[in-house]
Amino acid sequence: MDKGIFITFEGGEGCGKSSHIKGLAQYFEGLGRECVITREPGGTALSEKIRDILLHAKEGSDMSPKTEILLFAAARAQHVEQLIKPALAQGKVVISDRFYDSTTAYQGVARKLGPYAVKWLNSFAAEGATPDLTILLDLSPREGLARASTRDGEASDRMGSQALEFYEAVRGAFLQIAKDDPERVKVVDSSGTKEETFEKIISAVEEKLDV
Amino acid sequence: MDKGIFITFEGGEGCGKSSHIKGLAQYFEGLGRECVITREPGGTALSEKIRDILLHAKEGSDMSPKTEILLFAAARAQHVEQLIKPALAQGKVVISDRFYDSTTAYQGVARKLGPYAVKWLNSFAAEGATPDLTILLDLSPREGLARASTRDGEASDRMGSQALEFYEAVRGAFLQIAKDDPERVKVVDSSGTKEETFEKIISAVEEKLDV
Repeated sequence: MDKGIFITFEGGEGCGKSSHIKGLAQYFEGLGRECVITREPGGTALSEKIRDILLHAKEGSDMSPKTEILLFAAARAQHVEQLIKPALAQGKVVISDRFYDSTTAYQGVARKLGPYAVKWLNSFAAEGATPDLTILLDLSPREGLARASTRDGEASDRMGSQALEFYEAVRGAFLQIAKDDPERVKVVDSSGTKEETFEKIISAVEEKLDV
Repeated sequence: MDKGIFITFEGGEGCGKSSHIKGLAQYFEGLGRECVITREPGGTALSEKIRDILLHAKEGSDMSPKTEILLFAAARAQHVEQLIKPALAQGKVVISDRFYDSTTAYQGVARKLGPYAVKWLNSFAAEGATPDLTILLDLSPREGLARASTRDGEASDRMGSQALEFYEAVRGAFLQIAKDDPERVKVVDSSGTKEETFEKIISAVEEKLDV
């Protein structure tokens, strides 16, 4: 039986995660591999319920930063136990839209919780499911937000400068994660065409994994 | 302004927590103190939503042990930030039906997670809200279950010997917590009449707290 492969995609708004994840799954299926596409927070019925609480609460609630990170961790623990680990054990390729690096990056920017707590919770929730490869789709927030706005049919100038500053900080946090763990996390420049970016993703996959 | 007081009640089924909590709140109100009665998991709108997930999932779900303890911690963090700490800061008496000792006791018996993880999560979620006094209502499970059955209108013999063994272990875990932290946790024998038990609770409160 094939060995399971766990790949995660990270990056900001409009970097093309969804589309490239579908493309990569087709690539693996072309090689005769069974693929599971999943996402965080979510991926199981229970984790999607937790996702609902997280997303619903964002509209002006007073969810405490600790509650938020604990809910992300709870959704992740269930995702890992119920979906990711069983699929890997069956030799499947699991591709997740976001995983623990998103928690690290967004919490790192929010700076409401110490890095030790974030690390501890990430490692507790994801125990036994370290990504074999993480593709960080890197794009300037200005470009990413413009793409996302086009996609969602909104005017790109709706995004204020404060939001831009926030997304710049998130980008910096993602790049720091890649710097700290270069063996696992590959930075893919996403400023070119979709085809150019996808070629870079396939190169990173072939270089890192024995496919 | 009065200093806030945080009291938690712990113990197994049928030990009389709800009734004695009401009685203790009346006692404090008689002394001119404002009281807040709350419970875990729960106590805030968001924590009650998390409680629903926890209770609903119990019916034959496959919630992972890590997901379960993370959801308890998430509910607790919100409870502490949004209800307990603000009430204590306003000089109120907060009485909670269960708190982190229940997590320690039940997880200790389930033994699916190491004691270090349980301690870490309890302390992370409850930071800034250590109970001034914890009343552990101690009762043999056989007696407690008989009382709970009478209360719920069920025949007491419906409870099998396996359940009895489980509740014996939980009782042992609670008594161990009291042994490890005798300054905070007071064991109150609940085998006598309701009035006798309540007198013991008041003695413990007066002995420990400056009321």
